[in-house]
Amino acid sequence: MIQTPYLLFLGDAPDQLAAKVAQGIKDWRPEFAVGQFRMEGCKADMGLTDMTLEQAKAAGAKTLVIGVANRGGVISPAWKKVLVAALEEGFDLASGLHNLLKDEADLVAVAQACGRELHDVRVPEVDYPIANGVKRTGKRVLAVGTDCSVGKMYTALCLEKEMRARGMNADFRATGQTGILITGDGVPLDAVIADFMAGSIEYITPDNDADHWDIIEGQGSLFHVSYSGVTMALIHGGQPDALIVCHEPTRAHMRGLPGYSLPSLEAVRDMALSLAKVANPGAQVVGYAINTQHMSEDDALAYVAKVEADLGLPATDPFRFGAGKLVDALAAI
Amino acid sequence: MIQTPYLLFLGDAPDQLAAKVAQGIKDWRPEFAVGQFRMEGCKADMGLTDMTLEQAKAAGAKTLVIGVANRGGVISPAWKKVLVAALEEGFDLASGLHNLLKDEADLVAVAQACGRELHDVRVPEVDYPIANGVKRTGKRVLAVGTDCSVGKMYTALCLEKEMRARGMNADFRATGQTGILITGDGVPLDAVIADFMAGSIEYITPDNDADHWDIIEGQGSLFHVSYSGVTMALIHGGQPDALIVCHEPTRAHMRGLPGYSLPSLEAVRDMALSLAKVANPGAQVVGYAINTQHMSEDDALAYVAKVEADLGLPATDPFRFGAGKLVDALAAI
Repeated sequence: MIQTPYLLFLGDAPDQLAAKVAQGIKDWRPEFAVGQFRMEGCKADMGLTDMTLEQAKAAGAKTLVIGVANRGGVISPAWKKVLVAALEEGFDLASGLHNLLKDEADLVAVAQACGRELHDVRVPEVDYPIANGVKRTGKRVLAVGTDCSVGKMYTALCLEKEMRARGMNADFRATGQTGILITGDGVPLDAVIADFMAGSIEYITPDNDADHWDIIEGQGSLFHVSYSGVTMALIHGGQPDALIVCHEPTRAHMRGLPGYSLPSLEAVRDMALSLAKVANPGAQVVGYAINTQHMSEDDALAYVAKVEADLGLPATDPFRFGAGKLVDALAAI
Repeated sequence: MIQTPYLLFLGDAPDQLAAKVAQGIKDWRPEFAVGQFRMEGCKADMGLTDMTLEQAKAAGAKTLVIGVANRGGVISPAWKKVLVAALEEGFDLASGLHNLLKDEADLVAVAQACGRELHDVRVPEVDYPIANGVKRTGKRVLAVGTDCSVGKMYTALCLEKEMRARGMNADFRATGQTGILITGDGVPLDAVIADFMAGSIEYITPDNDADHWDIIEGQGSLFHVSYSGVTMALIHGGQPDALIVCHEPTRAHMRGLPGYSLPSLEAVRDMALSLAKVANPGAQVVGYAINTQHMSEDDALAYVAKVEADLGLPATDPFRFGAGKLVDALAAI
């Protein structure tokens, strides 16, 4: 688990988009974002107070989170200087970069000398068990998608926000690196050894209060041949009571697979539900989350209305129009 | 890839069952088994010539395969002496033990000094790619099961034997440690990182002759919540043209999951086929392989006949009654 709150390191981000991770933290866990640290030439701005390491430390920040994608897959000497100084100042470091902090000998040495932690969220930090399939207390909802990157994480975070706003007992459970950095905890499922995938999901969604909801971030798609095994492990390890089907309507083919067209919402609904019932016979699909970012507002509203009419369940773009309908459906379970 | 042929190390096996791996090699790749090496007190016997290391070397053996499960998870000093001597004699070592050869400093040192290889088949030796889903040439058949350990490996090996006997162009593709030791190649799928599971299956079943069959060893079950993700990766990475459903009729519940009853053959057929069609729209279920080892011959024949009558496809126990019917069905594709 990563210590919060954070100082967000934006480095020399070439644009706002490069600081996607920092943006996610700012959007979904503003209480974790004490300030931002920008280097010369940084073109990203989270609208947070710019702080030196000393100021952030005084303001209570415990971890410097690398909130920016680096160029060319290497940690530049300019970054390195800041990271070393942060360790010396008493910060842990957290990163989702492909090149690991733990592979940088100088960072490892300084962290050891200063008694600080290096968190590479691309790599599991836990020895997960093999799933045992035992029914757990509390309730669980899982986002499943027609494809990869259709908005499953944002849907789950929107659900959490709305449920908490209503005073419901709910926690987002991250299963990917961005989600882990946002919340400080979770499992990097795509990096887990095959035998332990479902067990890792059981591990992060243990027994809980009867009224508690685990909102499990989805990964991949049952219809994406590269990653469907990961999705399968989420469905069986998560033993969800409720499934929400996520979709992005403008996509021409499955992400990275030009030869593969997207499945229908009906196909995903039926397949995911059949499989979910193996682990939880009471599982149900409760609604549809449509990612309308590439559509006009009129088109988006029309699309969502058509999904509701055709499929007979609540549909919305939870990020654009709010997650209220979907939370209503969950609250009724 | 493990160099063949082998000298089979039976160690101090307490009984025949402990030498299951050696038995598999003897049964399915007798041409790989030059001889056996037994220590004092060994209670297993493959019926092969007992050989010293020198004799086996002279007879052409290239790898000493640990064909026996060790007690208590440690490599005993008595074993160690033989393993070191084998490396010095010029053998590679291959093992499916939980405790890895590569974790034994003395073995690593001797192997290095002698220029020999240590193969721990529990651990992937290849950096597998992410699956790309591109349709490959040649034909593929995958064994899927109602549960784990219902005979998927034996079914696949029986198919290979029968197909080769008919002069068909066919190769068993191992996806588990025993299969890898038997054939000298394959992927230990349960130990592969999640993101690369389907890619590892694409890797071991590449483009091939139009009349060539990859006979892919199955793992887990779509209905086994601990391992279903692995099965899913086999179905999408393998893009099978044909599926054979494997079943063991006397099992009271899913292996290791007391709360889970076995799915029907129909449920496995329908679920596996729907998912297989994502990667290969022409996929079909061609028959049923029933593991009747715990049934009398009369009961076995009656059960198999009932499956054929009920489901309208060939059914047999390929190990007990031959795989002819199933190969007839495959040959017709």
